[in-house]
Amino acid sequence: MRAGPSPEEVRRYNLGSLLRYVHLNGATSRAELTNRLGLNRSTIGALTAELTTAGLVSEAVPRETGRAGRPSLVVRPESVRVHAYALSIEVDRLRAARVGLGGRVLDRRECRRPPGMQVLDTVEPLADFVGAMRREVADGARHVGTGVAVAGRIRRADGTVRLAPTVDWAEPLGAALGAALGDEHRLTVGNHADVSALVEHSRGAAIGCDNVIYLHGDAGIGAGIIAGGAQVTGYGGHGGDIGHMVVNPYGRECTCGSRGCWETEIGEQALLRRAGRDGETGREAVLGVVRAAMHGDSRAQFAVRRAGEWIGFGVGNLANIFNPEAVIFGGTLRDVYLVAAAQIRSRLNEVALPACREHIRLRTPGLGNDAALIGAAELAFQHLLDDPLLS
Amino acid sequence: MRAGPSPEEVRRYNLGSLLRYVHLNGATSRAELTNRLGLNRSTIGALTAELTTAGLVSEAVPRETGRAGRPSLVVRPESVRVHAYALSIEVDRLRAARVGLGGRVLDRRECRRPPGMQVLDTVEPLADFVGAMRREVADGARHVGTGVAVAGRIRRADGTVRLAPTVDWAEPLGAALGAALGDEHRLTVGNHADVSALVEHSRGAAIGCDNVIYLHGDAGIGAGIIAGGAQVTGYGGHGGDIGHMVVNPYGRECTCGSRGCWETEIGEQALLRRAGRDGETGREAVLGVVRAAMHGDSRAQFAVRRAGEWIGFGVGNLANIFNPEAVIFGGTLRDVYLVAAAQIRSRLNEVALPACREHIRLRTPGLGNDAALIGAAELAFQHLLDDPLLS
Repeated sequence: MRAGPSPEEVRRYNLGSLLRYVHLNGATSRAELTNRLGLNRSTIGALTAELTTAGLVSEAVPRETGRAGRPSLVVRPESVRVHAYALSIEVDRLRAARVGLGGRVLDRRECRRPPGMQVLDTVEPLADFVGAMRREVADGARHVGTGVAVAGRIRRADGTVRLAPTVDWAEPLGAALGAALGDEHRLTVGNHADVSALVEHSRGAAIGCDNVIYLHGDAGIGAGIIAGGAQVTGYGGHGGDIGHMVVNPYGRECTCGSRGCWETEIGEQALLRRAGRDGETGREAVLGVVRAAMHGDSRAQFAVRRAGEWIGFGVGNLANIFNPEAVIFGGTLRDVYLVAAAQIRSRLNEVALPACREHIRLRTPGLGNDAALIGAAELAFQHLLDDPLLS
Repeated sequence: MRAGPSPEEVRRYNLGSLLRYVHLNGATSRAELTNRLGLNRSTIGALTAELTTAGLVSEAVPRETGRAGRPSLVVRPESVRVHAYALSIEVDRLRAARVGLGGRVLDRRECRRPPGMQVLDTVEPLADFVGAMRREVADGARHVGTGVAVAGRIRRADGTVRLAPTVDWAEPLGAALGAALGDEHRLTVGNHADVSALVEHSRGAAIGCDNVIYLHGDAGIGAGIIAGGAQVTGYGGHGGDIGHMVVNPYGRECTCGSRGCWETEIGEQALLRRAGRDGETGREAVLGVVRAAMHGDSRAQFAVRRAGEWIGFGVGNLANIFNPEAVIFGGTLRDVYLVAAAQIRSRLNEVALPACREHIRLRTPGLGNDAALIGAAELAFQHLLDDPLLS
């Protein structure tokens, strides 16, 4: 608690607000900024001038206004000059991108992550990606940080990754990546589903929704949950571990030691088992089942519908708990959702109370498969947006 | 977004902060207020003087300081002069209290709510209680508003109560009570479990915990959930409807139309049925089973243990979702918890991931059965605390 912010604090706050606005909304006229930010014209002019001097935005006369009179200058983020690196460590692949202010992907790399490759072993190929991208960067560009999205449990404090539900903290990913990139103090590590939820909320399928559940399917099931506009992280940052919400007390044993977790009913292995493809694994195998179901394969259809029912069941439970406006299906759940929407909606309607489900919209990610990658970049941009003049 | 708060806004904010501090913490020395609020001594002196003039706090020399030198004046809330009415509409009783600033109960009334008494029919006896209490108030007292806690689904906008899970909005409680009390604009209606969670968070068993689940048992099961310090309300205010989280897909049909809701496994009727007391109902009947279990009645012990297992199961699921620091058992769940803590903890440990449960403390309400009543008063005090000089 303070006696009130100083003029300098107010100025920095306003600089951050303006930069955040054009970062999320793209090129915006000074007139519209005046409206949106509730600041007067001269303040907007002064803030823009300051951000321009700092090399964070540029101004130009718009091409066509359709109105008489002097057109309002358009402010746009310096998307090419100012950039962050985004890394995504997924179950079966590693991705890296250079992302410009404003969320524009300027460069990207990707490779397979072989089964069994440990989290720490991803550091070298990811650092190689960043090195290669760095060599392509033009002189005068400004790097603001690196964000990492990991499909795994993250300890926020230091970016350590918990390998499996029952295993102790093991992999100091943040420290290792920071050392490899020579960028320790600007590295932020987040959970894959959490960052996807945030970016879908800020620039994807859930803009304007304050209560959002983002579900991600790969080998397991993860979630990023936004309640009342804020991310549900819980005491240790482990909130949203809904793959291990038990939906079927009489179901199969789970890798976590419990029984009938949501993952055991809607995860990759459940789908492949029900489709009679027990030996297979991975994203391509799941897509194979989905495609077979679309082409009339009855066993695949059974598997997909059964998954749909259990997805709807779990979403119904989450609806009773969170009363969300939007539920977004990402990863392989996106593909399953597209062929099993009827089963999902029907079971959801059975389980959820009318008051809790009447406003729910079911969605696929607005940013497609890039949600986690763009979300990782957002982690890196936060420092800049919080205080644009902090170098 | 604004160009920055005015000195007047800062002053009002600080007045609210000081008043809120002594409201929650009781008599506090100026020296401690200076520390806690991060304001300098002269500002604290000026704020205190202003609140004293407004009749909201008083100052006195402390009886005993144990230190040399001039003792710091102690600021205390005007608990007798400034008060709110608190009403609690429960399944089997109606309660009313006059609560002084600082959370002190000054007067209280209670009557049975007969089975089948509609929500709107509670308005008359509650208004009678308030009338009777009002006649006892000394001259010069200041009434700041009325808060109502209702065991039911509340639409925040207008305090309308949804009668049953599947029934449409029906009972315009807020309007009816406001008219009966002649106090429409200062009446705030909240859900019983929600207000209990808030008050346990601010002055009960979960002080300092930002991730809290308050569970309340009566005829059904309700919850108030605080995640990251903020209440989970959801889009329409229906978040936390966890009595209808389905825990047993093969369980009994629920009144909501679904099957195997948590309520059907841990609610009053489940407990009484398993204890062989099918015809009974209500809080006393539940306490009867708990007492019988404590005295060695094997059927009652079976019922209580089974309830404990399903309570632990649901709490485990909620732990995976919310990673909470504290779970509080209120209403009849408090009594069941006290005899079935071992079953609850054991099942919770099976279902919840280590990372999600390792910091959980299981608790009974710090404010006992008064949580909802004091919580209702808090609803009424919020306006005053937000802006102490607004009359």
